[in-house]
Amino acid sequence: MTKKFAAEFVGTLWLVLGGCGSAVLAAAFPEVGIGLVGVSLAFGLTVVTIAYALGHISGAHLNPAVTFGFLASGRFKASELVPYLVAQILGGIAGAGILYLIASGKAGFDLSGGFAANGYGTHSPGGYSLQAAFVTEFVMTFLFLIIILGATDVKASKGFAGLAIGLGLTLIHLISIPVTNTSVNPARSISQALFVGDWAMAQLWLFIVAPIAGAIVAGIFYRLVYSEAPRFSDDKIQKELVDDHQ
Amino acid sequence: MTKKFAAEFVGTLWLVLGGCGSAVLAAAFPEVGIGLVGVSLAFGLTVVTIAYALGHISGAHLNPAVTFGFLASGRFKASELVPYLVAQILGGIAGAGILYLIASGKAGFDLSGGFAANGYGTHSPGGYSLQAAFVTEFVMTFLFLIIILGATDVKASKGFAGLAIGLGLTLIHLISIPVTNTSVNPARSISQALFVGDWAMAQLWLFIVAPIAGAIVAGIFYRLVYSEAPRFSDDKIQKELVDDHQ
Amino acid sequence: MTKKFAAEFVGTLWLVLGGCGSAVLAAAFPEVGIGLVGVSLAFGLTVVTIAYALGHISGAHLNPAVTFGFLASGRFKASELVPYLVAQILGGIAGAGILYLIASGKAGFDLSGGFAANGYGTHSPGGYSLQAAFVTEFVMTFLFLIIILGATDVKASKGFAGLAIGLGLTLIHLISIPVTNTSVNPARSISQALFVGDWAMAQLWLFIVAPIAGAIVAGIFYRLVYSEAPRFSDDKIQKELVDDHQ
Amino acid sequence: MTKKFAAEFVGTLWLVLGGCGSAVLAAAFPEVGIGLVGVSLAFGLTVVTIAYALGHISGAHLNPAVTFGFLASGRFKASELVPYLVAQILGGIAGAGILYLIASGKAGFDLSGGFAANGYGTHSPGGYSLQAAFVTEFVMTFLFLIIILGATDVKASKGFAGLAIGLGLTLIHLISIPVTNTSVNPARSISQALFVGDWAMAQLWLFIVAPIAGAIVAGIFYRLVYSEAPRFSDDKIQKELVDDHQ
Repeated sequence: MTKKFAAEFVGTLWLVLGGCGSAVLAAAFPEVGIGLVGVSLAFGLTVVTIAYALGHISGAHLNPAVTFGFLASGRFKASELVPYLVAQILGGIAGAGILYLIASGKAGFDLSGGFAANGYGTHSPGGYSLQAAFVTEFVMTFLFLIIILGATDVKASKGFAGLAIGLGLTLIHLISIPVTNTSVNPARSISQALFVGDWAMAQLWLFIVAPIAGAIVAGIFYRLVYSEAPRFSDDKIQKELVDDHQ
Repeated sequence: MTKKFAAEFVGTLWLVLGGCGSAVLAAAFPEVGIGLVGVSLAFGLTVVTIAYALGHISGAHLNPAVTFGFLASGRFKASELVPYLVAQILGGIAGAGILYLIASGKAGFDLSGGFAANGYGTHSPGGYSLQAAFVTEFVMTFLFLIIILGATDVKASKGFAGLAIGLGLTLIHLISIPVTNTSVNPARSISQALFVGDWAMAQLWLFIVAPIAGAIVAGIFYRLVYSEAPRFSDDKIQKELVDDHQ
Repeated sequence: MTKKFAAEFVGTLWLVLGGCGSAVLAAAFPEVGIGLVGVSLAFGLTVVTIAYALGHISGAHLNPAVTFGFLASGRFKASELVPYLVAQILGGIAGAGILYLIASGKAGFDLSGGFAANGYGTHSPGGYSLQAAFVTEFVMTFLFLIIILGATDVKASKGFAGLAIGLGLTLIHLISIPVTNTSVNPARSISQALFVGDWAMAQLWLFIVAPIAGAIVAGIFYRLVYSEAPRFSDDKIQKELVDDHQ
Repeated sequence: MTKKFAAEFVGTLWLVLGGCGSAVLAAAFPEVGIGLVGVSLAFGLTVVTIAYALGHISGAHLNPAVTFGFLASGRFKASELVPYLVAQILGGIAGAGILYLIASGKAGFDLSGGFAANGYGTHSPGGYSLQAAFVTEFVMTFLFLIIILGATDVKASKGFAGLAIGLGLTLIHLISIPVTNTSVNPARSISQALFVGDWAMAQLWLFIVAPIAGAIVAGIFYRLVYSEAPRFSDDKIQKELVDDHQ
């Protein structure tokens, strides 16, 4: 478990530092900034890189909603839920801390720029309502889990899951940054909200509830509709999960 | 068949929600919008993700023209044509519906912005004529099918078809969004035209006829020129098709 | 040979239609144009898609310089040189013809915009000298062939050559469009110069001589420095070449 | 060793010519410039292309920090350290020389534009402090090595390491160009500083010390936390390293 914990911690640290870091440091850089395309690419590539680097250790969830989705699909053992969630949340906070250290090294930096926190209503980048935000986070996480569960299925092409899942996260950001700044990942939302406080903490509930709900529904849906057969053995499940990522 | 139907439905839903969604929500976002590069990437990544996630179930056509092309190439059985088309069209409409739900959550939204519908003449993004639009849709779909049939041929590299086909759709969008907003997919055109109505419905015929014609010609061309041998057994065909996608 | 001819013809048609087409139709589209990043991506993706779709038929050279480079490396038989070159040049011209048909469907189109032809001096996009243009085309094609010969070597990872080579062409465009509009491919330069005439024909020699020279030097260099052993059997060579691409 | 030396030399030449070249020639091209997204992509693709082309020869380090990281992880033999470093530094200088030859072929070019050298404080593109620059280079190289060591581990998916590592370098650039112009590679920093002189030479120490320190810490961390077992045999180590890249 120590190895898995260290993999989820480092991986989620990288997801937050890389994804939110690209948004905070480079998105709006004058003239040559990376824009939302660059930020979308960055979020996705954190997952691509960790999936191939550490996926053979922990499965590279890096996201509480993904862990809940695997649990709902019957491919993750409940006894490992808490350590995975703790590692992800602590890793996200560590990533946000390093980003703060770097970003504050520029004169004039302050957190009121948002620090890439998620929001709805007046805090949605494009001014989208709470309802639109909830639908977006629920549906995007639902489809993210369909991609993850399908690409790691025993019948899927071996080796390609890391690319499909990471580029899936890029796609989700290409669509939905204007709506909510894109979460689909409570760990990434918690870390940024802790630094921004205020409105970001007040709106945080949506970015915990909607992604986890979407992921659980996807897990059940995938298991019922697409899976060949349920798999029950706890020991085998975790092994298969890890193997699927290879 | 239920699994295949559910895969084509969910996959085409994702293609429309992701591709058209990125165009409607994020393409022209102030300062940092994703532009046509981002939209092209989004359309392609919907196919990449579904190809690896659900390709082992239905072959991940997500497009009536693709299904017609496979049929013409002799690698799809006619008895499954109608269920595939129905699943694709309903999935596309569902995707457009979810997108409407999200997009209308922003004050000032209305469908006269086009909702990413396809058009020619005065409704071509760059003002291209009907003739240019027809040539574009025919040729782009012809080459899309050459890519699909070639990359899923028994002699092609295993596993890479999903990337080649999805990135092929990205390429097609990089070229042709200014001409027709890029269809090469009647399901994607039907769903958006139903919401926009009016001129989009009046011009819809082109985005059904030209892609399907291009796909059928490609299917026949591939079979005659490149295939090693015709394959006749219905049962075997579907299995091979699915295997090719893995 | 008919299959190989048809593969090189269709593939080079796609390279020119896709690469030059993205430049002519979409690069400078108002507000959301794809810019040089999009054009670079488009050129590379024509190669990625054809490599996986038709690479198992002809090796997917799509470029006279590539064919000369393979010949110099000892991995292509001389008797097939002329048919490959003819197919590539005719395919390029056909691609440019289709592009002309589409582009001229917009009011106000004329060829003086350059039609993505290659140039140096006053016809270099960024105003680079003949010397800079020659060095660029020579060095870029040299490295393109190192990538191609290395990624299709018997000891390289199976299956990844199409991605490495196509993304290599994207990279070359990211660097050198400002210098020469990037050729590294005489077929692509010939087709566009034929349509533009005038200065493009007068400068065409450089985009034939420099890429082919760079490719031949790379072929000899790779054979002497990196290859395990020379391979002499003509029959075996072509088979290996095709197998390497799979 | 000659082959390995030639591979590291040509590969690092390509990394500097391609990565810094895209920045100098194309990043700020009027209207359609590739921006920081294009430069990030270019740096990453130099690694992707060389990993598949020459990775089976030398392991494609192309970076003294990577070589030190492999050494610290116990997967590189000390006797090859110096030749690798020499080849990388000379290759980088050769790449910068070719770039100078090309870039100076445009009227008005001069090196005071920075020639893509790395810097902090007043020479940081976004004005970030020395402390922020050091943290950035240390952390980014640490994570780069985690990606490299993990993706080439014996338990990782075969073949995908080149993509994961190259796209990891793209990601690192998407995040950190505004802070330091991104080094994570002393060879790339040395070559550009030699041409720019002055402030670039004065600040060069940071881009040697911080990346190598981050890489060594990552090597030790990976070995202690993630590796299954230490590997001691020198002969076997180098073979495994090369095999891992295939």
